[in-house]
Amino acid sequence: MKTARYEKLESVPLQNININDTFWNSYTRLVKEVIIPYQWQILNDNVEGAAPSHCLNNFRIAAGEKTGEFGGAVFQDTDVAKWLEAVAYALCEDRDESLEALADYVIDLIAKAQCEDGYINTYFTIKEPGLRWTNLTEGHELYTAGHLLEAAVAYYNATGKRKFLDSMIRFADLICDTFGKEQGKKHGYPGHQEIELALVKLYEVTKERKYIDTAKYFLDERGNMPNYFLEERKTKQYKLIFQEFSKYEPIYSQSHIPIRQQLTAEGHAVRATYMYCAMADIAYEYEDLELLKVCESLWNNIVDKRMYITGSIGSSGYLERFTTDYDLPNDSNYSETCASIGLALFGLRMAKITRQSKYIDIVERALYNTLLSGIGLNGKEFFYVNPLEVWPDSCLPDTSKAHVKPVRQKWFGVACCPPNIARTLASLGQYIYLVDKETIYVNLFISNNTTFKLEDKSVKLSLKTNFPNNNNFKLNINSNKDNKITLALRIPDYAENYKILINGEPFAAGIEKGYAMIDGSFIDDTLEVSFEAPAKFIYANPKVRADAGKAAIMKGPLVYCLEEVDNGENLSGILVDTSIKPKEHFEEELFGGVTTVIAKGKRISGKNWDTHRLYCEHKPKLEEITIKAIPYCYWCNRKQGEMLVWIKELLKD
Amino acid sequence: MKTARYEKLESVPLQNININDTFWNSYTRLVKEVIIPYQWQILNDNVEGAAPSHCLNNFRIAAGEKTGEFGGAVFQDTDVAKWLEAVAYALCEDRDESLEALADYVIDLIAKAQCEDGYINTYFTIKEPGLRWTNLTEGHELYTAGHLLEAAVAYYNATGKRKFLDSMIRFADLICDTFGKEQGKKHGYPGHQEIELALVKLYEVTKERKYIDTAKYFLDERGNMPNYFLEERKTKQYKLIFQEFSKYEPIYSQSHIPIRQQLTAEGHAVRATYMYCAMADIAYEYEDLELLKVCESLWNNIVDKRMYITGSIGSSGYLERFTTDYDLPNDSNYSETCASIGLALFGLRMAKITRQSKYIDIVERALYNTLLSGIGLNGKEFFYVNPLEVWPDSCLPDTSKAHVKPVRQKWFGVACCPPNIARTLASLGQYIYLVDKETIYVNLFISNNTTFKLEDKSVKLSLKTNFPNNNNFKLNINSNKDNKITLALRIPDYAENYKILINGEPFAAGIEKGYAMIDGSFIDDTLEVSFEAPAKFIYANPKVRADAGKAAIMKGPLVYCLEEVDNGENLSGILVDTSIKPKEHFEEELFGGVTTVIAKGKRISGKNWDTHRLYCEHKPKLEEITIKAIPYCYWCNRKQGEMLVWIKELLKD
Repeated sequence: MKTARYEKLESVPLQNININDTFWNSYTRLVKEVIIPYQWQILNDNVEGAAPSHCLNNFRIAAGEKTGEFGGAVFQDTDVAKWLEAVAYALCEDRDESLEALADYVIDLIAKAQCEDGYINTYFTIKEPGLRWTNLTEGHELYTAGHLLEAAVAYYNATGKRKFLDSMIRFADLICDTFGKEQGKKHGYPGHQEIELALVKLYEVTKERKYIDTAKYFLDERGNMPNYFLEERKTKQYKLIFQEFSKYEPIYSQSHIPIRQQLTAEGHAVRATYMYCAMADIAYEYEDLELLKVCESLWNNIVDKRMYITGSIGSSGYLERFTTDYDLPNDSNYSETCASIGLALFGLRMAKITRQSKYIDIVERALYNTLLSGIGLNGKEFFYVNPLEVWPDSCLPDTSKAHVKPVRQKWFGVACCPPNIARTLASLGQYIYLVDKETIYVNLFISNNTTFKLEDKSVKLSLKTNFPNNNNFKLNINSNKDNKITLALRIPDYAENYKILINGEPFAAGIEKGYAMIDGSFIDDTLEVSFEAPAKFIYANPKVRADAGKAAIMKGPLVYCLEEVDNGENLSGILVDTSIKPKEHFEEELFGGVTTVIAKGKRISGKNWDTHRLYCEHKPKLEEITIKAIPYCYWCNRKQGEMLVWIKELLKD
Repeated sequence: MKTARYEKLESVPLQNININDTFWNSYTRLVKEVIIPYQWQILNDNVEGAAPSHCLNNFRIAAGEKTGEFGGAVFQDTDVAKWLEAVAYALCEDRDESLEALADYVIDLIAKAQCEDGYINTYFTIKEPGLRWTNLTEGHELYTAGHLLEAAVAYYNATGKRKFLDSMIRFADLICDTFGKEQGKKHGYPGHQEIELALVKLYEVTKERKYIDTAKYFLDERGNMPNYFLEERKTKQYKLIFQEFSKYEPIYSQSHIPIRQQLTAEGHAVRATYMYCAMADIAYEYEDLELLKVCESLWNNIVDKRMYITGSIGSSGYLERFTTDYDLPNDSNYSETCASIGLALFGLRMAKITRQSKYIDIVERALYNTLLSGIGLNGKEFFYVNPLEVWPDSCLPDTSKAHVKPVRQKWFGVACCPPNIARTLASLGQYIYLVDKETIYVNLFISNNTTFKLEDKSVKLSLKTNFPNNNNFKLNINSNKDNKITLALRIPDYAENYKILINGEPFAAGIEKGYAMIDGSFIDDTLEVSFEAPAKFIYANPKVRADAGKAAIMKGPLVYCLEEVDNGENLSGILVDTSIKPKEHFEEELFGGVTTVIAKGKRISGKNWDTHRLYCEHKPKLEEITIKAIPYCYWCNRKQGEMLVWIKELLKD
């Protein structure tokens, strides 16, 4: 696999990328201006009306700085880990001293809370000091360690400071000493995967082989019989943490069979995608083509059969899990923001290894739709669950739809999504370009200025676009040497009439795995790329029961939705006429400038319906209407109301 | 209220009715031939592959006949209570000695298990002797007492034997001494309503006022502040029984506000309807028009806004509860068989008090559809949950649809539905006629021979029909006196061209509250009644999001459904053409003779769809098809597969 052909592509270091994009800046600027400061207040329990995080307080107690009891969930430490990771990425763009000082304070605190043997976990240190590693099923120790590790690697990469990294290396060494196939070591693996991909990242900065060996061990051991988690709960020390785990099904955590036998995506969607990321990493590092095939099979199962049009996953509200092929209910699904982030991370790894643009198509879909629907335009409200159809009246507590929230929430008791969104937005740059020694893959159409080394060449790129509101971009490329560079421009699956001008001259590029390939010695050249991506009706595979007889609207990577504020109540009664082409309309004032879509259709009218009749033989009338759709990512940024992605189609003879 | 006009109607004693109906006998014969003997084996834990009931074993332990531990749920005693009640009704029709001997054995056993002070409940006697009445929220003591009471009254009415009744009178006396507004008594009420309607029944046979006073007390106390259940759980003795009640919302048990302020149906649907039954009883007995208005408001809220077309209720799988107006999802609902039985019992009471046929319309809908879908044609398999749309592949354990079973189950750990179906089928006669001193209301079109006293007159009725396969019935009426009798023949809401012949001559009856009223002195007369009830497309109020753009098929009281076995897989892709009248077709071989319905339509075809694409801009093709529908009550009697009630409509311009 490590032939020249299969040399893995790399992201450009975040320090080298400066994003200045009309569409994305409205979100990315939130990270530094709003989310990081707001989350800092949250971590310190200073936000009125938001559930307390307890997170820093726990570290202060564990560090011996104060007394008190542990607060929050067993994985509460990850809040600060994801905050630090977001801070690290933000510092790559702008080395803000006061923010860095705040991070250094937290890093010192974490170091103080670290046990002598390297162990870090405030829940087990404060609350259950005798129960370390006795409940891998629910304890989240390895999951939490993974997020801290990721943060430490990110902070080291951002600042060059080693303190956090060194702390975490001591912890990682303890983990490597504790777990493994050798006699005397624990033959366990995490109840929530995450440590595996984090150990790979640690290997990437340290080149210390034992870290990926342990990551591989966790993957290889997973699902062997007898099942570790089922055995663990028979031990005396086992103490149940979550009531819902009192009956445990190994498939929930992808431990039902060995990972190489897993060809369909099962169980908890976030656990699954984090594991698939590590599987891709290990497949590459160990040149394991069989494991790569497993990754491809899992990816295909998701995107061909188990993924929402918005790039979200997890069809069941209960256990936040995958269900079965084509089971994609729109109003009771989970579709967790974190799971889409996991899918994007998995897709990025697959793109790096295989150089196929189809992975980026899905990464882009997940980022433009579900990542962004997860956060309000004010940066202070978040969706955990991302349904495709919401009727607020029916989203009641203590019902089957209790998990569906009709408005974004301030923060959550289990606060994985908001900091995960923050770190993803702050590291958006990693998705734009992928490079090897001589090739530059241009994946996402996001305006930026970037400088980096390509072997001995220094390259300067400037990408300018108003995507997704229009579909042209100008790429300026400067290189200090006239050696050959290959530019690989992604042709997205939705692009029509894809055209390239090089310095004003049309260029007919060869196409390889979904990329337009251009060889040249770019000293100072300008490429103008244009394509069409008109708003279109999109249909689901007829096997998707929930979408049969319905159409969605997409324009480029953006899925559109109807909102009550534009279309009145009862969106379920709207029938769209797909024989009339939808019209695009740029609204400068809305959401800072957005292309809305207007379609024609009818509405099932309740006007002549006797309100005292629930069922009746007289058919309701149809009224002509105009339908207005906005990008799904912006829904619920004006007022609470109904929302709908899949619109009934006016099916004619 | 107790004016002549409002004198309550009464059912005819079951002993006097002999049902010999083509449609119903296939079920009612099951009661004696299959269900009662089968349930007897279940109660004795003799059925392989079925979850053990433990029920009689618990009584044997409580009676001191054997040692061992309590088994089953806290309300396990109700299994035998409902079995005895069904046996009692069966004995009304046919005084089978060996069955009666079996019942007497059980009654002796119950008496032996009774405590000295009258208390009966094997869970608390065996397992928690110190905790009597300390957990009304979850303990189900009063609920269990209620079912035993109902059984005892039924057995007394059937056989004239007092032993069981006397046992239960002692228990009822203890309950009346324990609960009430007086100082020193407990100011509590049941966590699951049932005792209230049972105490009214005990009053009806004993004429002992304290029983309805206590029933009224339970109703009046309910929902007063501070909430009894929330206070109870603060006490030391409180011991949580069900994990899901660790966070308790009083609305679940209709104790959130006083019952007279409850104008919408809320919470657990079975609890609700059992309470509404008692509210109607008490409204009548205390001539409480205000309470009757509350009952009417609750009824209207259910049937106008919260009831499925099949007469089932409970839109949420979680907590088996009502949700909100027009929230009627078809594939994730609970629609418990017991809740439809509760609705029928409530409707029967309202019909007795108000003499309005609209209540019987709903009773009939619940009985013909959901009661019967609850039981397989073999009498040995039962549905608890009655969805209107099932895709078996998606009904997976550990998902949001885990409560939906694609096939009827043998028995259940919490086995309320099967014995409830048995007692309902065995007491079907109570719904057919309602009478006062001089009026005979004919409600249901079920062939029967009936003899009874109407004040000083002896009346003989014979009703012959092949309803619902055709819509004619012949009513022969004989009376030994020529005093005036009023016959009130229900004109169902679905009847067209309703015609009456008396002794061959057309008769134009006056219509009162949905009944054709015929005064006469019927010595030996024959009425021939006919109406049309063709198969029709029915629509839901457009506010019902789940049914917008869809049509159901009904013929008379029967709701129809599509099954995979007749229509192929993926029923969601079927579009029915409602502009073409559906055709009826009598199939003699199917289900012992059934009218099936054939309609025309199209199917969204997957034939040209690239199976690797989940979403695509190319619209799937439509194919012409013929659609076959069968009565919903018969679904899943051939083979497992998809089922669908609400069919997408081919909506035309």
